[in-house]
Amino acid sequence: MQLSPDDQLAEIRRGASDILVESELRARLAAGRPLIIKAGFDPTAPDLHLGHTVLINKLRTFQQLGHTVVFLIGDFTGLIGDPTGRNVTRPPLTRGEIAANAATYERQIFRILDPDLTRIEFNSRWMGSMDAAGLVQLAARHTVARMLERDDFQQRYAANKPIAIHEFLYPLVQGYDSVMLRSDVELGGTDQRFNLLVGRQLQQDYGQPPQVVITMPLLEGLDGVNKMSKSLGNYVAITDPPDEMFGKLMSVSDDLMWRYFDLLSFRSSAELARLRQQVEAGLNPRDAKFELARELVARFHGPAAGEAAQAEFVRRFRDRGIPDEIEVAELSAAPGGLVVTHLLRQAGLVASNAEAVRMIEQGAVRIDGERVASRDLVFSPNADLVVQVGKRRFKRVRLLPTG
Amino acid sequence: MQLSPDDQLAEIRRGASDILVESELRARLAAGRPLIIKAGFDPTAPDLHLGHTVLINKLRTFQQLGHTVVFLIGDFTGLIGDPTGRNVTRPPLTRGEIAANAATYERQIFRILDPDLTRIEFNSRWMGSMDAAGLVQLAARHTVARMLERDDFQQRYAANKPIAIHEFLYPLVQGYDSVMLRSDVELGGTDQRFNLLVGRQLQQDYGQPPQVVITMPLLEGLDGVNKMSKSLGNYVAITDPPDEMFGKLMSVSDDLMWRYFDLLSFRSSAELARLRQQVEAGLNPRDAKFELARELVARFHGPAAGEAAQAEFVRRFRDRGIPDEIEVAELSAAPGGLVVTHLLRQAGLVASNAEAVRMIEQGAVRIDGERVASRDLVFSPNADLVVQVGKRRFKRVRLLPTG
Repeated sequence: MQLSPDDQLAEIRRGASDILVESELRARLAAGRPLIIKAGFDPTAPDLHLGHTVLINKLRTFQQLGHTVVFLIGDFTGLIGDPTGRNVTRPPLTRGEIAANAATYERQIFRILDPDLTRIEFNSRWMGSMDAAGLVQLAARHTVARMLERDDFQQRYAANKPIAIHEFLYPLVQGYDSVMLRSDVELGGTDQRFNLLVGRQLQQDYGQPPQVVITMPLLEGLDGVNKMSKSLGNYVAITDPPDEMFGKLMSVSDDLMWRYFDLLSFRSSAELARLRQQVEAGLNPRDAKFELARELVARFHGPAAGEAAQAEFVRRFRDRGIPDEIEVAELSAAPGGLVVTHLLRQAGLVASNAEAVRMIEQGAVRIDGERVASRDLVFSPNADLVVQVGKRRFKRVRLLPTG
Repeated sequence: MQLSPDDQLAEIRRGASDILVESELRARLAAGRPLIIKAGFDPTAPDLHLGHTVLINKLRTFQQLGHTVVFLIGDFTGLIGDPTGRNVTRPPLTRGEIAANAATYERQIFRILDPDLTRIEFNSRWMGSMDAAGLVQLAARHTVARMLERDDFQQRYAANKPIAIHEFLYPLVQGYDSVMLRSDVELGGTDQRFNLLVGRQLQQDYGQPPQVVITMPLLEGLDGVNKMSKSLGNYVAITDPPDEMFGKLMSVSDDLMWRYFDLLSFRSSAELARLRQQVEAGLNPRDAKFELARELVARFHGPAAGEAAQAEFVRRFRDRGIPDEIEVAELSAAPGGLVVTHLLRQAGLVASNAEAVRMIEQGAVRIDGERVASRDLVFSPNADLVVQVGKRRFKRVRLLPTG
């Protein structure tokens, strides 16, 4: 049985940053036919983390509502590589590499999406046969001034940082993809808003009803501050082993836990409201976090793995005599890292450098359960550590990057 | 026998606005091989006027110095038409129309250029087989900021007038033409300077020595003020009949005559210097103008036509009792034109409107030898008229457009 347009809208709205234009979306939902839901992905970086899944989860919602998802791999630009030739780390991809990346994507996204309701597309199918004259005609559809309105272009132009002209063509290609797919809805991160709107405009230029644009927020990383990203190290890869994934999720703050519930959990809004009430009524937030971590580990590794990871997490802490609740200390660490003696002192676990050295020499310092053998040990930014001095002093130390 | 590089340079320099970089040109001339001289032409407007011939004359100079001229018809853009679809007056050209236009060009330019030393090229030969990915790669060779430095783009951007993105691609296409032709020199009007420099840069990007850029001034029209252009009506088409061409050239001011000599005459600089001395020593400038007009009519219609046009010109003026020297009055006319009675009064040929009407009614007013029969006759801007009132009052009246 299909949900009413309003009930569908309620599901779609959850966690979304913006829906442009909601009344158009309602009208299309009311028409009752399966909609074409487009989302574009880079052909070069198929290692997905939980940040990416915010979008994929929303695609799943559309599938559950009976719509068709097009997972579009933008391989046209990947086949070109970095056309300026300046970025040697971005060589053109071969067709074989793109196929391999696509397979990697599939392995990952089909833990969330229904393969039967997912169409995987490559924009080289139409862009590869477009000639230069066709691209000129496409380029004529947009003005320089409007393109320069895009935030990052505007900032670079104002800062005299070069924008190569082909960078103005890529949003048009992305928009043209919507024309070719006749997409009803395109999903993207909030940072993609401009490009998604180009698709909307181009569809109108080509005589199609303009796609509805839905932007999803960028998920904060484990630090709760920066967006989740591989380069910042504050991420949970969806291929992380169960225990690692569970531990990382247990390390997030209570506030961030609720954000993750909203954007990552498949529980209904009603269920989440109940859980919040329980915590407010005295349930240990750790127990709510267990639910979150177990759900996500189960999603990517199966239900048994979720249970096992929780049991292992509990066992490890108990075995080490680590209390359930540990005070958190947030320290900042330069890119070169923070040496263990400073870490102990700044976390308030020792009174002085000399005491830190003495405790290490006595073998009384453990970090994540491991005895610290050297006073020269250095920890990199973005680490999340359970630090123990003697039998009773514990701190959970988060090392945030400086600046 | 080939001229020395310095003697060649002296010929090349005559009338040119700018040579970038002269030392590079000298080095290429010194190498002794025939250079490839490129000039690009629009495929849509093959009606040439004397303004266009300034450039073509310089191409002729290069031919006389033993170099190869490539007359490049930019048909790639013509085949696209106006890609914005807004300009209905610029529909895409068919291949047949382009071939017909090329034939029209040939008929005209071979009155000046040596067909055996002229290569006619079409840039669709390479642009037609370029794919969208190739154009992306080309677009990556230039930045938005540098493109916005072009005068007209800068002005339009500052004035919030739209610049479509494909307009940024056309200078790159023009520059890529230089890469494909491996041109040693590109000629263009001063308004083409930016585009010619793009070619210089692209050749370097593609590992070629950069072309030398020579800009030629834009020829003033018969009014001596605006650049010669069909839309302003101040032009001499090279297909104008002999008498019309002769008469138009005789109407230019003495100052403009010397400018035309410099840019249009094939006489040597030494000959022109002698002619100037003769005029300074008392020769009637009209006789010098006869030389100019005869030379140009002879170029486009043969020597006999030049002589005949001069004889006819002299005869017509004598027959009508028109003196050789007539005072010039420059009047401005709104786009709707100027009525004859106002023209007579403003030119100082009558003292009042009433006198104008009376003289017309008496049949005493002739314009270009024709009796004026109606007081309502209107003359359009850009007309150049010999106006006679009674037997002895004459004025040459130039009607300039307002604004």
